[in-house]
Amino acid sequence: MSEASTASDPAAQPLDGEPRARVAVVGATGLTGALAARLVWRHPGLELVAATSRCDAGRRLDELYPQHGVPMALTALEPDAVGEADAAIVAVPHGASAPVVADLRRRGALVVDLSADFRLRDQATYDRVYGPHGAPELLGDAVYGLTELNRERVRDAELVANPGCYPTAALLALAPLAEAGLCGDVVVDAKSGVSGAGRGGADFADVVENFKAYGVEGHRHAPELSQELQALGAAGAITFVPHLLPIDQGLLTSCYVTPTRETSHDELVALYEARYADEPFVGLVDAPPGVRDVRDTNAAHVCVAREDGSGRLMAFCAIDNLWKGAAGQAIQNLNLVLDLPETEGLL
Amino acid sequence: MSEASTASDPAAQPLDGEPRARVAVVGATGLTGALAARLVWRHPGLELVAATSRCDAGRRLDELYPQHGVPMALTALEPDAVGEADAAIVAVPHGASAPVVADLRRRGALVVDLSADFRLRDQATYDRVYGPHGAPELLGDAVYGLTELNRERVRDAELVANPGCYPTAALLALAPLAEAGLCGDVVVDAKSGVSGAGRGGADFADVVENFKAYGVEGHRHAPELSQELQALGAAGAITFVPHLLPIDQGLLTSCYVTPTRETSHDELVALYEARYADEPFVGLVDAPPGVRDVRDTNAAHVCVAREDGSGRLMAFCAIDNLWKGAAGQAIQNLNLVLDLPETEGLL
Amino acid sequence: MSEASTASDPAAQPLDGEPRARVAVVGATGLTGALAARLVWRHPGLELVAATSRCDAGRRLDELYPQHGVPMALTALEPDAVGEADAAIVAVPHGASAPVVADLRRRGALVVDLSADFRLRDQATYDRVYGPHGAPELLGDAVYGLTELNRERVRDAELVANPGCYPTAALLALAPLAEAGLCGDVVVDAKSGVSGAGRGGADFADVVENFKAYGVEGHRHAPELSQELQALGAAGAITFVPHLLPIDQGLLTSCYVTPTRETSHDELVALYEARYADEPFVGLVDAPPGVRDVRDTNAAHVCVAREDGSGRLMAFCAIDNLWKGAAGQAIQNLNLVLDLPETEGLL
Amino acid sequence: MSEASTASDPAAQPLDGEPRARVAVVGATGLTGALAARLVWRHPGLELVAATSRCDAGRRLDELYPQHGVPMALTALEPDAVGEADAAIVAVPHGASAPVVADLRRRGALVVDLSADFRLRDQATYDRVYGPHGAPELLGDAVYGLTELNRERVRDAELVANPGCYPTAALLALAPLAEAGLCGDVVVDAKSGVSGAGRGGADFADVVENFKAYGVEGHRHAPELSQELQALGAAGAITFVPHLLPIDQGLLTSCYVTPTRETSHDELVALYEARYADEPFVGLVDAPPGVRDVRDTNAAHVCVAREDGSGRLMAFCAIDNLWKGAAGQAIQNLNLVLDLPETEGLL
Repeated sequence: MSEASTASDPAAQPLDGEPRARVAVVGATGLTGALAARLVWRHPGLELVAATSRCDAGRRLDELYPQHGVPMALTALEPDAVGEADAAIVAVPHGASAPVVADLRRRGALVVDLSADFRLRDQATYDRVYGPHGAPELLGDAVYGLTELNRERVRDAELVANPGCYPTAALLALAPLAEAGLCGDVVVDAKSGVSGAGRGGADFADVVENFKAYGVEGHRHAPELSQELQALGAAGAITFVPHLLPIDQGLLTSCYVTPTRETSHDELVALYEARYADEPFVGLVDAPPGVRDVRDTNAAHVCVAREDGSGRLMAFCAIDNLWKGAAGQAIQNLNLVLDLPETEGLL
Repeated sequence: MSEASTASDPAAQPLDGEPRARVAVVGATGLTGALAARLVWRHPGLELVAATSRCDAGRRLDELYPQHGVPMALTALEPDAVGEADAAIVAVPHGASAPVVADLRRRGALVVDLSADFRLRDQATYDRVYGPHGAPELLGDAVYGLTELNRERVRDAELVANPGCYPTAALLALAPLAEAGLCGDVVVDAKSGVSGAGRGGADFADVVENFKAYGVEGHRHAPELSQELQALGAAGAITFVPHLLPIDQGLLTSCYVTPTRETSHDELVALYEARYADEPFVGLVDAPPGVRDVRDTNAAHVCVAREDGSGRLMAFCAIDNLWKGAAGQAIQNLNLVLDLPETEGLL
Repeated sequence: MSEASTASDPAAQPLDGEPRARVAVVGATGLTGALAARLVWRHPGLELVAATSRCDAGRRLDELYPQHGVPMALTALEPDAVGEADAAIVAVPHGASAPVVADLRRRGALVVDLSADFRLRDQATYDRVYGPHGAPELLGDAVYGLTELNRERVRDAELVANPGCYPTAALLALAPLAEAGLCGDVVVDAKSGVSGAGRGGADFADVVENFKAYGVEGHRHAPELSQELQALGAAGAITFVPHLLPIDQGLLTSCYVTPTRETSHDELVALYEARYADEPFVGLVDAPPGVRDVRDTNAAHVCVAREDGSGRLMAFCAIDNLWKGAAGQAIQNLNLVLDLPETEGLL
Repeated sequence: MSEASTASDPAAQPLDGEPRARVAVVGATGLTGALAARLVWRHPGLELVAATSRCDAGRRLDELYPQHGVPMALTALEPDAVGEADAAIVAVPHGASAPVVADLRRRGALVVDLSADFRLRDQATYDRVYGPHGAPELLGDAVYGLTELNRERVRDAELVANPGCYPTAALLALAPLAEAGLCGDVVVDAKSGVSGAGRGGADFADVVENFKAYGVEGHRHAPELSQELQALGAAGAITFVPHLLPIDQGLLTSCYVTPTRETSHDELVALYEARYADEPFVGLVDAPPGVRDVRDTNAAHVCVAREDGSGRLMAFCAIDNLWKGAAGQAIQNLNLVLDLPETEGLL
């Protein structure tokens, strides 16, 4: 081929005659939107009908992201065109997302929203953290899309609020404890690669060979984490501190829990095994998980341990922040919303 | 699931009733063998019937390579079992490969060999570089598997010698010049990530924040590169110097050519466009290609330029050394050998 | 010059006629020993009289560590030669150190020991963690050399047990709280670069683009941290979990403390400012410190914060694990032992 | 101390009563200016009297660069104040430098200029590459400050044009060949870490795990390299292609030379040994040099080799782009200009 692209290839087409769901990706030039577009493009049950961009309309996606190989031109967000899609993945910034989502919903499209706009159930909290909400009337419709916690509600949802990357990893680490009433005070010491901050998020010279905490005064993901963890039954104070890793993709949460009662290693392992036995994307591991083991996958690797002396519990979860922490989980949710197999297009 | 694996998933199964070719991967615990196993596993037209390992038999592949998600136990190399495969990808070290390949061929399996054992047509050269050859009688049967150069011969081959990563990138950069008789003296300044050296290939402390040349006294890939470049028509001296990049995956060749006659920018671009117009995995790019653009893909990005003052030509090629430089190209060749679409399982 | 070294240079010599203390570095081929040798070499008040190595005797230090520029040949450990030194920095592995130290002490040399052999005051604890102690009779003589905690005792010491890198950073973060009786339950989530594990400590492919916890079942530094933190007055349970950063040098401890009583941001800042006002190497910073800010320096950057809702305290400390975490602090201690200015040779 | 700085320390002061030369650093907030300020600060024969910044006046240098530990406030560029310095290191962008230098020269200060403004002797070439020159009347005064090539002229200079990082490494690799009349056609394949592009020079996401060439259409350093290499006697075409390494500091040039006559390995080694025998900062090495070996030092490691078959010559040079490629060489030149020992403050 004469351009750096993977031209429309028969192998990427549907293998049978069944109609595929038509999906638009709104905001396809950020890291997560671009990955979402790629995952839709390669998905045997979905058809990518539009990929929009405010700034890069007219350019090709495989020019901006050669490694994704999506040979499609970006378009401006034209509601009519996008509105013909059966479903949309929306990946625009917080605040800007709500009106876009509202319009898509009016046109009947099912929506998975990657922004924070529909994650917080309490509008006052949202307004305090992000500013005035652009479509508060939809807050009640949104289902928080941490698939492993809300699978059945996601199946019936018309608007899915895809979780933040940090809450995803923290909740998967802690859910079995919270649900069992074991979760007292919690410290979530979280570490994310640079792609979590989006394109242009970090000057190389500030990140390379460096490591530090940030957002100590209060990170935007903290209210989301508290909302969900408390809903699961966590009783104690929740401290959340993110750190920036000098890598591209990958996120680890190290969670330290004061249990509400005595427990044992064996009880913990049994608890986690029972909780995640049927989860296709959650892997229980014996040793602390590494972010590289889940790179470019939708997997979450979880490990639980108990400190002998103090009885304190430790739970770790490693994910790829762009996959299970964003675009991968969006596809997982979209599969459910569209009655497709949950893992389709993600293995 | 209760283990860190992606359990056997319907989506990974064939979508129709056609029988798939049965493929064994011999030596599946190295980086390239493991990737080959993953690519076979996910390939809609192939069935992974065995993945062997001398040292890790009994362990699971997705324990060693969680990110690949191949839920299969490794076995010892039992010729009978492996021999029932229709085809095999062999990824064992140079020297050890020849007898394994010979045995597989005797049992009728088609073979793509990732070692250097069948790349050099001249046995004396092989013996000098690698030591005595273990199956010289097969040298005449082997087809050098740089797909873009030998597509039709690969289709008919029963034994494909998969090229080295450096020669792959250098030849793709230079083939249009060599075939057009334009290639005089050549310098190939090549740079590869650490995975090119295999597992355990580099101490972190020696590589991080470092960069240097190696093999200046003569790298094993040099005779292979010379053999193929001269076969294409290159007339001049060929200098090849590899360097080690402090990254994991990625390989770039920067080639400097003294042309055999005057040429122009436009002639060069036309030459490359014509040569690669129908190549599904070669992308011509206007600016020097980056290795990250092709990471985890089978693509080769090629760029040609002409220096105004001196008339010297420059040609760059970026590949992922594990994909187009090894396991990806092996699948590309296997597709041809098995009469499958060339890009299947690679997009 | 015809070799890759910085030849004996007048500028590195003493600027006046005063005799300099004669110092030997025992075990100068590891990362910390080599840095110690470099720091002694460039120190205006010290003379490097010997640098020993079990395996590399006869080779030059500036061949092994060109960046250090120490143009000296390594020698075997010959007790007579080394014993003529006024002082020695011992940088050999745990267990091997004790007999070497004992011999040096018998010969009258002052010793700063970088191993763990003299850090634990309780021999039973040592024996459990490291195996039988080689010189238990010296345990009572050793002074734990976290300079900022034990400055006056170090001045009078003949044997200094240089702290571990993790305890150094954790104790500097927590000492003001512990000394003020504020330190209840503590979680120390620690992250270190690869050089903390010594040469050959990590395969590049395991570390690059990766991040994970290790030693969850109990790290050797935990008893040392507990011993010292409790001695300072900490009352609660201490959890310590190290993680491996994909960088070379740098160590950060993120400490989460349940205070024993209510406190305020202002009280905390005043406490830390008072504690570290006169410390030449401790810098209080307002924002969470980055490891890069202290790279190749003996500085420790400390930051304290209080979480509004829960009242939980957070204290961070960033050091260079090879400097303040090892060889730099050894020089700091040596300066005190030898009645030299504490910062000499370290700025 | 209560701030993250290394307070004015006696050990950093001059050890005797001799007056030190007063030095200003103009433009001390860029990477090279900040390093120059640090090197002046710690230099036993120099006194840092001012560090200026257009944008950061009023802030402290050790706030911007904690690792350098220079406890000095930045000031605006006030010519009167700065003009009282005996000498100045100017580290402001190309084009902006010339008028600053002209003013400093009028006030009698000796100047080492880190910009490109006085490197090219031919004004027309400068104007073409950088735009109209701001002080062409000074071009004749400037001495090109590649110390190893122009030592005696630098001693007598009042204005030193400090070389670019790429030309420094390329010229040190090639000078012995050029001076001996051996240097025919040359390819300089150069690779630099990100700090070569200055602060804010690169988005982490574009650089990490990436590698590519740039400036293929003509890099600004090419005319400088040609000017100097031809002045040394090089006869052939010079091709120069820079690449961007995913590291912070470090620069390697791999040079490929068609010799003007037959030569031998022994002749080459003798040539280089003779040329660099007395050079305090040039180290000849047997194996290709790594950039890490010279990190944070003013050393240049050079290696020469001859390819058996073709007779082509290869010469490698590794430097730290911020040290020997910029601020370190500036101090080396300043030492000469001020009649101080050449290596003072650099070991």
